[in-house]
Amino acid sequence: MPERVNRRIILAARPSGFPSLRDFRLVTEPVPAPADGEVLLQTVSLSLDPYMRNVMEEVGPGYAPRVELGAPMVGATVSRVVASRHRGMREGDLVLAAAGWQDYAVSDGTGLTVIDDMRQPSHALSGLGMPGFTAHVGLLDIGKPRQGETVVVAAATGAVGSIAGQLAKLAGARVVGVAGGPLKCAHAVQVLGFDACIDRHDPRFAVNLRDACPDGIDVYFENVGGAVLLAVLPLLSIGARVPLCGFVAHYNGAGTPGGEDHMPALLAALLQKRVHMQGFIILDHYGARFGAFQQHMRPLVDDGSIRIDEAVVAGLENAPSAFLDMLAGRHLGKVVVAVAD
Amino acid sequence: MPERVNRRIILAARPSGFPSLRDFRLVTEPVPAPADGEVLLQTVSLSLDPYMRNVMEEVGPGYAPRVELGAPMVGATVSRVVASRHRGMREGDLVLAAAGWQDYAVSDGTGLTVIDDMRQPSHALSGLGMPGFTAHVGLLDIGKPRQGETVVVAAATGAVGSIAGQLAKLAGARVVGVAGGPLKCAHAVQVLGFDACIDRHDPRFAVNLRDACPDGIDVYFENVGGAVLLAVLPLLSIGARVPLCGFVAHYNGAGTPGGEDHMPALLAALLQKRVHMQGFIILDHYGARFGAFQQHMRPLVDDGSIRIDEAVVAGLENAPSAFLDMLAGRHLGKVVVAVAD
Repeated sequence: MPERVNRRIILAARPSGFPSLRDFRLVTEPVPAPADGEVLLQTVSLSLDPYMRNVMEEVGPGYAPRVELGAPMVGATVSRVVASRHRGMREGDLVLAAAGWQDYAVSDGTGLTVIDDMRQPSHALSGLGMPGFTAHVGLLDIGKPRQGETVVVAAATGAVGSIAGQLAKLAGARVVGVAGGPLKCAHAVQVLGFDACIDRHDPRFAVNLRDACPDGIDVYFENVGGAVLLAVLPLLSIGARVPLCGFVAHYNGAGTPGGEDHMPALLAALLQKRVHMQGFIILDHYGARFGAFQQHMRPLVDDGSIRIDEAVVAGLENAPSAFLDMLAGRHLGKVVVAVAD
Repeated sequence: MPERVNRRIILAARPSGFPSLRDFRLVTEPVPAPADGEVLLQTVSLSLDPYMRNVMEEVGPGYAPRVELGAPMVGATVSRVVASRHRGMREGDLVLAAAGWQDYAVSDGTGLTVIDDMRQPSHALSGLGMPGFTAHVGLLDIGKPRQGETVVVAAATGAVGSIAGQLAKLAGARVVGVAGGPLKCAHAVQVLGFDACIDRHDPRFAVNLRDACPDGIDVYFENVGGAVLLAVLPLLSIGARVPLCGFVAHYNGAGTPGGEDHMPALLAALLQKRVHMQGFIILDHYGARFGAFQQHMRPLVDDGSIRIDEAVVAGLENAPSAFLDMLAGRHLGKVVVAVAD
């Protein structure tokens, strides 16, 4: 039974630097009514992702539109069709949608995908969805790890890194994670099966990373930037590959330690080590590649070869604080808000 | 008739920042005598190249050994066999060698290539040698310009850039050069046939570059770094390719304007524009690719489709000042020292 109001979390202010709870506001509106050809969607699970920090900016990130002030925050959801005036969709269907940070949304069906055969529907937001696909494309299409090579994965217990590292293990690579704190590092090794995981908060981080990569780094799966990248650069092997899907260390305007210009060091490493660095935006790859990803990943998830970690936060009203916690790296795995049953 | 002494220019001091004449010293030694199986080479032409700045450092560049203090500077040469105790080489043969900054050298033949059919032997050091090969591999294998795309070439009138730009024109691209000063820019457009060339010393450089690239930049042939790269970043098209063969702006320890950390801006551009940036060291490619380069380039040079500019400086004793002038960008084209007839 739908509630009577649609709670929405809107962008109340554009953050400068690290966002705060005051940048969001919960408002209520009447539940919208679907017109002919439309469905009413109720949000079951809401995905929280680092890219959402970028769409809060005055100037959007280019690959996705910015959010207007006063508009609801955007985001992928698993939603349930609770009323249908659309031929192709039935009440009760679970769909992957982009309904954003709110209880309800209407849709004409564009971009909706029915989730009919996933054991755990929230996986459509995590390991079997965008973050898992990001890991798959970046690691396998760009990183191309070979048997016995060393793969370093930043944000090793995050939504993307945890999958990238497990895929690298399956490809026969030696996998070294980088994560913030001893608990995450222990998880990466003991639960995810990484060969090692280095705590980036340790003052000896760069030395420890070097010691963990005695043969250099053949693939660096980059989604952090900052001090982690600087520690990786001198360790890159000749011919290394660096898929780049994000650099969350810089999303809030933070630079790198010391305030120097690190661009020359980056260029020097790319040149001397003949590095292939490749930025990619996962939205580009759905058409050509998502089917193959699903075919490869689903059996691996089903048989337990790949573990999907989800940090589930209960309640739409807690999405802003969960988002801030995610940016600060306080979760293990993919952050999902459980909005309704 | 060989002279009685071998003049050599040795590394007298390791420079900090921009080198000076005091970092070099001319010494004389007896002309060495070839042992059985060896040849005596007399240097005809000596190549001066930006990478030589890097081999002067305490820590070498990785892809080439550093020069020891007191040892002669290294470098590619066109040399003449003036005495032979080697079965495969005859007196009078012209060879491509690595005899360095000196009049004479002995060699057991390793790495020597007889230059038997080149109209102008010094081309083996310029357009038909390492710089031309660098342009060819970087532009065609990594840059892959397509008909109608926009290619920007840094150091447009330099040994590498001048060839890269001409190859891009032949591939049907619109070619915009970047060079230091109006004379070089006029040369790039009027003589080399570039569509435009922007003066990087102009205070309106970034705006002028933008205006010259109304459809964005699909390929940026990078061998400069610094302010030129920073002006290019916001103009890169989605899917742009950036072959990286050098960054001479930083070779003398100079950073970029403003002293900020530009690494985040570089990462942001690589990600948002899905850029493929690829460092390469041309030494890696001789075995697999040099033959194809020669086959492609020789007819183009012979029929005038590709013009090779050489700035010839007379006299080995002038190599140090010519080298400093080259690092400061004071020549048009490839800098070659004429050492003997």
